[in-house]
Formats: sequence, structure tokens, C-alpha cells
Amino acid sequence: TRTLDLAVVAGDGIGTEVVEQGLLVLEAALDADGPTLTTTDYDLGARRWHATGETLTDADLAAVRRHDAILLGAIGDPGVPSGVLERGLLLKLRFALDHYVNLRPGRLYPGVRSPLAEPGEVDFVVVREGTEGPYVGNGGAIRAGTPHEVANEVSVNTAFGVERVVRDAFARAAARPRKKLTLVHKHNVLVHAGHLWRRTVEAVNADFPDVTVDYLHVDAATIFLVTNPSRFDVIVTDNLFGDILTDLAAAITGGIGLAASANINPDRTAPSMFEPVHGSAPDIAGQGKADPTATVLSVALLLDHVGQSAAARRVEAAVAADLAERGSAERVRSTAEVGKDIAARVAG
Amino acid sequence: TRTLDLAVVAGDGIGTEVVEQGLLVLEAALDADGPTLTTTDYDLGARRWHATGETLTDADLAAVRRHDAILLGAIGDPGVPSGVLERGLLLKLRFALDHYVNLRPGRLYPGVRSPLAEPGEVDFVVVREGTEGPYVGNGGAIRAGTPHEVANEVSVNTAFGVERVVRDAFARAAARPRKKLTLVHKHNVLVHAGHLWRRTVEAVNADFPDVTVDYLHVDAATIFLVTNPSRFDVIVTDNLFGDILTDLAAAITGGIGLAASANINPDRTAPSMFEPVHGSAPDIAGQGKADPTATVLSVALLLDHVGQSAAARRVEAAVAADLAERGSAERVRSTAEVGKDIAARVAG
Ligand SMILES: CC(C)[C@H](C(=O)O)[C@@H](O)C(=O)O
Ligand SMILES: CC(C)[C@H](C(=O)O)[C@@H](O)C(=O)O
Repeated sequence: TRTLDLAVVAGDGIGTEVVEQGLLVLEAALDADGPTLTTTDYDLGARRWHATGETLTDADLAAVRRHDAILLGAIGDPGVPSGVLERGLLLKLRFALDHYVNLRPGRLYPGVRSPLAEPGEVDFVVVREGTEGPYVGNGGAIRAGTPHEVANEVSVNTAFGVERVVRDAFARAAARPRKKLTLVHKHNVLVHAGHLWRRTVEAVNADFPDVTVDYLHVDAATIFLVTNPSRFDVIVTDNLFGDILTDLAAAITGGIGLAASANINPDRTAPSMFEPVHGSAPDIAGQGKADPTATVLSVALLLDHVGQSAAARRVEAAVAADLAERGSAERVRSTAEVGKDIAARVAG
Repeated sequence: TRTLDLAVVAGDGIGTEVVEQGLLVLEAALDADGPTLTTTDYDLGARRWHATGETLTDADLAAVRRHDAILLGAIGDPGVPSGVLERGLLLKLRFALDHYVNLRPGRLYPGVRSPLAEPGEVDFVVVREGTEGPYVGNGGAIRAGTPHEVANEVSVNTAFGVERVVRDAFARAAARPRKKLTLVHKHNVLVHAGHLWRRTVEAVNADFPDVTVDYLHVDAATIFLVTNPSRFDVIVTDNLFGDILTDLAAAITGGIGLAASANINPDRTAPSMFEPVHGSAPDIAGQGKADPTATVLSVALLLDHVGQSAAARRVEAAVAADLAERGSAERVRSTAEVGKDIAARVAG
């Protein structure tokens, strides 16, 4: 495309601050022969909900759908009841736009401090399923608020849904030097869902014979993430396990200030969405303290998705250079300063 | 009681090795005015299943039920299909004997190496619900093995089940110096189950006004476990989140070789069960390499449960002393040597 027509959902709290810097870096990364960037802001999130009671209307969704991609900052504030914006906006976007690949790199950049004493080389990617599992919203309660309440949550897993994300994960593994795929589940307890995942990985492996496959229960996977994170190359897992593992992965690679994510619709039947893993952080909002790096790295994932891989690598290299110097920096920079510095490096 | 009538399920792999040492220490810990120990071995696990196809018969269960407590080593070997012994034996015991409190201390003993660069002081306890949640086995699949398969797993949560474990957790928090309880769930996504947990914690807090309560989403909890584990005192959480968090907790406090657990029926309508968190480790079985410390610490939890707190403290002190010297030891001791050394310290 000659244009890159972006929907921008800056959202709440630090969301607006980090998205501003993400856009600055995106502009800097798109070179003369690249697409021309146009952006449209969407007022979605806590602010809108407080004002109108709306989360994501049909009209919003139809409008967002027409863009090439979505850049999202963060959603939510403490005044909104838990679940309202998560289910009604963030997950609604992921489900409606069929973001079945939730891609989250776990990479420890040189110079970044990990809480691990000996992290080793950490460079893996989690392919988290994004449209099934316990996230489907198929739960309910009877006799709520009484001593006889029963509250159920149903994890729904389909051969269709599992196969497409497993296939994507295999393709990613096959394209990486180590060509290793680890399935994470809990098939000794969640036998039905777990065995579907296991059988699917075994079957799809036939199409990717170069990829080595192993399996870990989710509990064991958390152990290896802190004792031997280098063992991981590509991880494929369900929606909830992926949520848990990627926060842990972020923690061991420098924190959620650096953790990027892409909600990808690989079939391109709807725009993909790029967002930092962190939330709106109301405690530090409006103070210029937020680290925009996670959003900047999400912009790199966006550039990859729209075919601008060279620009994506430039952004990653600029971030790497910026991170390498942070340890020796004299003072902590503001959100805007970090964005400006990275953008300057990208521009060259 | 003047006797302590123990059911021993040594199980498979390293299970038999570590249980032998656990019993040695238990004998040493029971002093002259303590109860007299009698033990009955139960042949349950992979060996029995390979020989007879049985996991846990009604007769087994009735027999086990008559004991004061159960000491379990580890269950399983690679020749048994995933889920058969987990669902048919281990979880069947936990559910049938109503082990609704799955207690798992997370304690970093002086001298023990953590993979964390700066673990700080780590001393918390996880109260994992043991009889509900995604572990209930209420799942199923249709069209299994076809491209149209749908596999569901249902997490069942009841006011009855949540309240009793939350109450137990509050009582434990109230008895500790810091009096702090952290609920871990994911109520922004699993809204029905999550809100039941949340409302229950709020309600029970009224009966424990001295206890300070906070809340973390499970993904955020994994971050804090590696960046600031000292923040935790008592954690209460559901069956699956508890499974995940306690393996991570074990990893940051020296590994599963040290991680103890108690499956407690606080109403004492059936015997409680004490077991190391680790599995049967077929790769090192029969070589005297397994660390019996997790089983020994599970024995301390057993002693607490049967009212022998002084003996429990002696076992913990002996373990602490043993651990403190391991770093400077000239060679790695065998399973039996570690057991003998700890037993000798306990005896005096
Ligand atoms: C906010 C929440 C619904 C979301 C999730 O659970 O997916 C977040 O934790 C994430 O990982 O993007
Ligand atoms: C073996 C398995 C069923 C079990 C569980 O998931 O509870 C184990 O991981 C544990 O934590 O005791």
C-alpha cells in the first residue's frame, strides 16, 4: 500500500502518553519510499464510558474495521467496574477482529537488568491464542450473591481455532534459527482441551518436519522461565496460559515497560492491533514517567505486519541502542524524551 | 491421639526414595510423649496401573480413609497416558477426601540459592483451593479427532467452596505477624468466578478486621513473585492459579526439591494428605539423587496438622540447619544421606 491508514486508540492513563511517542517513532521509521501515514483517533476507553456509558458501539467497530491497523495505548481506570472495558472493549476488539495470534516477544536486550541473577540469552516469542479458551466469555452464575451461588467459566477450544494458531506458531518457529516449538498446556488435568492441543501440534508437525517440538505443563513452564529462559524459542499456548506466561516473560526481560504485543489476524480479514502489554497505570499517569518503549516495540511489530520489515529492524536497533545506554545515563528521562531520542536514532 | 496411623503412598520413581527419608525424619521427630507411629503401605500409582489397570478402587479409598493422615511421594511414569493417574488417583484423593485447602509455603531458607538476583526475604504461604475450579473434571469434547472438534473445560466455583477456603486463608493470615492476605484471580476476564471470589473475600474480611487485603490479577502476581516476592504474606487463589503460582514460588525459593505441600481437610471428615510438590522424576529415579527435603518439609506440615507443632518446628529447624551448610559442603549427598543427616539433627 502507498498509505498506512492507522486507527489510534490511545485510551486512558499513560496510554495517551506512550502512543504519542509510538507515533513519533513510526513517522521517523517510514522512509521516503515507504507508505504515507494517516491516523484517525478513536475516543474509546474509560473517558468515553464515564461520559456516555458506551464501550464499543457497532458504529465504532465498523469504523475501526476500515483501517489498515490499530495502535492501542492502554484502557481503563479505577472508576470503571472490573470487566466492563476488558470484556466490552479490549477483548471485544480482539474477538471481533479475529486476532487469533497474540504475539509477544520475550527478549532481553543487552544492558537491560533482569531480576534473574543469571538470565543467559533470552530471545523467544510467545504465540498466545487470542480468540478461544477461558476468554470466550461463556461463563455465568446462578443464585449470585447467595450462599448457594455457583459461578462457572467455560474454556472453549475448537480444532479450527487451535489448528490455525498452531500452524502460525510452526511457521514462525521454522523461520527462526533454532526452529524449536514448545507447547504449553496442562493436559494432565484439562484433558479434553489439552489433548486437542497436543494432537493438533503432533499433526501439524508433519508439515514442518524441521521444527523440533517439546511440551511443558504450564506450572513447569513458569519454573523454566526463571531458571533457564534460554531453553525457549517459540512457545504456543492458550489464551489464559499465554496471558500469565507473557507477564512473567516481561518480568524477566526488564519489565512491562518494555513488553510489546501484536494482536494479529493473519488472514487479514480485519485490521491487526498493536499494543504494549502494560495497562493504563493510573498511579503514574500524566507525569511523563511512563516508559514508551513497549509501545515503540509494538510499532516495530506493526511495521513487520504491514511489510515494512527494514523499518521494523531500524526501530528495534534504535531501541536496542537506547536501552544499552540507559544503565549509564545520568538521569531518568521523561516519556517524551525517550520517544524523541529513539525517533532521532531511527531517523539516523 | 496416642497413635499416628499413617497411610503411605510412596508411588513411583523418586517417590519411594523420598518417602523413605520422610518417614525416617518423622520417626526421629516424634518424641517419647508423642504419638506412636504406625504405617500402612498402599500400592497405588503407575506400577499398580501397569499390573492391574486399577488407579484407585472403592476399596482402596475406603481403606485409606480410615487413617489419620496420608504421606504421598510421587505418582506417574511416562508409560501411563497423561491424565489417567492425575485424574484417577491424585486428584481423586484430593476431591474424595475433601482437601479443600492446598497449603504450599514459599520460603527462602538462609543459604539457599535463588535464581533471583535480589530475592529479599521470602516467607509466604499459598492457600490454593483444592476441590473446585478448572480441576473439577467437568469438561468434554464433541467430534473428537475431527476438524469439527470442540473441547470444553468448565471451571466450577461455588459460594460454599470459595467461602470455606477464604475463611481458612484469613485465619492463617490473622495468625501471622504481617496479617496480610492477597487474593489472586483474573476477575477482569473470568468475571463470574472472579467476582464470586472477590465478594467472598470482602465479606469474610469483616470477620477478620485485623487482616489487610489486597488483590492481584494472576498475570501481575507472577511479575511480583520475581520482582518483589517479599510483598506476599498469605495468598489465596483458585485451584489452577494456585498450581501455577506455587511452581513459580518453588522456583524462586530453591526449586521443587524443597517445595512442600499439604492437602488439608480442615473439618477433619477425612485424612489430610502431605506430599512434595515435585513429581516422580523418572529421569533420576533409582539413583539416590533425589532431594528428600520437600518430603521432609511436608512431614513438618503433617506434624502441625496432627497437633505436634513442637516436633514440626524441630523438623523445620533441622532442615534450615542442613540447608545452611549445603553451600559449603564438599560433595553432593545421596537421598539417604540427606535424610539421615536431617533425622540426626532432629533427634538432637
Ligand atoms: C486487560 C486484560 C483483559 C488483558 C488480557 O488478559 O489479555 C491483559 O492482561 C493482556 O495481557 O493484554
Ligand atoms: C500432577 C498434577 C495433577 C498436580 C496438580 O496440577 O495439582 C501437580 O502439578 C501439583 O501441583 O500437585
